[in-house]
Amino acid sequence: MTTMRSWRLRHRPVGDIKDSDLELVSEPVPSLADGEFLVRTVYLSLDPTNRIWMSDMDQYMPPVEIGDIMRGGVAGVVVESRNPRFKVGDTVSGLGGWADYFVSDGSMLSPMPPAPGVPLAVQFGLFSLIGPTAYFGLLDIGQPKPGETVVVSAAAGAVGSLVGQIAKIKGCRVIGIAGSDGKCRWITEELGFDGAINYKRENVGARLDELCPNGIDVNFENVGGEIMEAVMQRMNNYSRMPLCGLISTYNDTEPAPGPRTWPLILMRRIKVQGFIVLDFLPRIAECIADLGKWLAQGRLKVRVDVRHGLENAIATVRELYSGGNTGKLLLQVGPE
Amino acid sequence: MTTMRSWRLRHRPVGDIKDSDLELVSEPVPSLADGEFLVRTVYLSLDPTNRIWMSDMDQYMPPVEIGDIMRGGVAGVVVESRNPRFKVGDTVSGLGGWADYFVSDGSMLSPMPPAPGVPLAVQFGLFSLIGPTAYFGLLDIGQPKPGETVVVSAAAGAVGSLVGQIAKIKGCRVIGIAGSDGKCRWITEELGFDGAINYKRENVGARLDELCPNGIDVNFENVGGEIMEAVMQRMNNYSRMPLCGLISTYNDTEPAPGPRTWPLILMRRIKVQGFIVLDFLPRIAECIADLGKWLAQGRLKVRVDVRHGLENAIATVRELYSGGNTGKLLLQVGPE
Repeated sequence: MTTMRSWRLRHRPVGDIKDSDLELVSEPVPSLADGEFLVRTVYLSLDPTNRIWMSDMDQYMPPVEIGDIMRGGVAGVVVESRNPRFKVGDTVSGLGGWADYFVSDGSMLSPMPPAPGVPLAVQFGLFSLIGPTAYFGLLDIGQPKPGETVVVSAAAGAVGSLVGQIAKIKGCRVIGIAGSDGKCRWITEELGFDGAINYKRENVGARLDELCPNGIDVNFENVGGEIMEAVMQRMNNYSRMPLCGLISTYNDTEPAPGPRTWPLILMRRIKVQGFIVLDFLPRIAECIADLGKWLAQGRLKVRVDVRHGLENAIATVRELYSGGNTGKLLLQVGPE
Repeated sequence: MTTMRSWRLRHRPVGDIKDSDLELVSEPVPSLADGEFLVRTVYLSLDPTNRIWMSDMDQYMPPVEIGDIMRGGVAGVVVESRNPRFKVGDTVSGLGGWADYFVSDGSMLSPMPPAPGVPLAVQFGLFSLIGPTAYFGLLDIGQPKPGETVVVSAAAGAVGSLVGQIAKIKGCRVIGIAGSDGKCRWITEELGFDGAINYKRENVGARLDELCPNGIDVNFENVGGEIMEAVMQRMNNYSRMPLCGLISTYNDTEPAPGPRTWPLILMRRIKVQGFIVLDFLPRIAECIADLGKWLAQGRLKVRVDVRHGLENAIATVRELYSGGNTGKLLLQVGPE
């Protein structure tokens, strides 16, 4: 019997995630029941929502229970199978655990289609959950029209950097809000955003006034808090606000008050709609087709920020909340 | 030259509307330019939004300017005309002024179609702005499906009492929140709501738990504040929230914080959408046809709460914020 390492949740974090909130343990690789298969983890996707799953806040799926292996987005290889749909050697992605190996019955995993010439990390980072989040949130809920102004927060993050590029493909003016001059340069100079605001150094409201002279038609919201209020104050009549994340509040120890801009939803007939990418999985094919085409055409640039070693999972996930990553943050746990 | 009485805005109210915020003045009936016509006011519609127009808060149309005649919903009769579309004797409704007479070029007024057997007050109260507000807000934005649970606040008010009845016609379970036992009896015993909560006497959250065992699918929001938070806490995944009014906050002297339930919009994929009935006027015919049919069938009951005398406008409008009215509040200014 071989052993593996896994991160088990010991305490629900209060504020920032502490080292002692999870424990890296060594334990036997689990054995399989009929219908199950064993996946060796290659990449672990570290995402803002991880902090939600560690908490017991009201959330969109059950939280991770104390003592359980931490849930995570994963890409990996099937190494043992008692499920006819998943064969040894298949590459799969979906929801698994922060561990060297994990067992699945296939319900939260899909095979990754072959993508010649595309590195596995890019394929995972783009197609698995992040690309569909940006795609469906922006296009289905945001409904951007050519010539409209789109603002996206956490714009140099995994989702935000795609949202801005897709909005450009759709003919919009795109302004991104990010947390460093380097990130702002990346999204304007490399990704083609029309403007960027460094919220740590600039007055967000004043800069929005300069960069969005016709107001804001779509606010793709990843952050919440005061930055969200500054954007909402400049949203137009009939504008749309896909609510994708509220990362600025996930480490709060008290429930944050809602935005003081709430009455504007009424006065300006704004649509605010929350969404979770899992709701769109039945329609994933249309998304993959478009993203794959844009990637092949060079119109979509994907940056993966790959770190290494399962033992670094906590330190790495914390970077999401301090702004340490640019693009999609991945942790490589084992060889491809 | 004859004279008329008009209410002119003297100060923007701070908190509750004070007597000194508007002044009843006597002034000449205005003369007409080409294309204009003169309307004698019969009924004045008193609505929560009046308080918004008196303020300079961010709002959906320009506020009433200091010194101007207060804007109001009106039904009246054309008594003089230099506009070929509006003839002397026509009954019209739309936006006019708090005055015995007002001049219009027809841009904010429509002729009222003949409605045999329906009193003018009912016709005005139902078809002019209130019915379409309930109809389009509930059906277009709320998208209720048979068997779903609909909650409406200010449920014994003009809009709320119609929303609940339309939701019943559409096969929903309907719970209303109102401010007195009498109002609660009216909406359950007369209008057919499945349940009612007297928010002044009962714990709204606990009662919602009892009355909405399957959660809430549509929250037609008229009120805001803590009642809205209690409803939002019980909204289901993929639920809808037409945002029609926030009457509990209109008299606030400081901007109210937003709802602490804001993150639930994300976690439960709620759609919150503000709307103003004026946006739906191009589609008014479909609404009038349905409302008229339901009224004729006895499936829709309309209660008008008619007060008398233009001089009582301020005292009457204040009742909206203290819960003094049941059904549509009208002020009769002159004979039909």
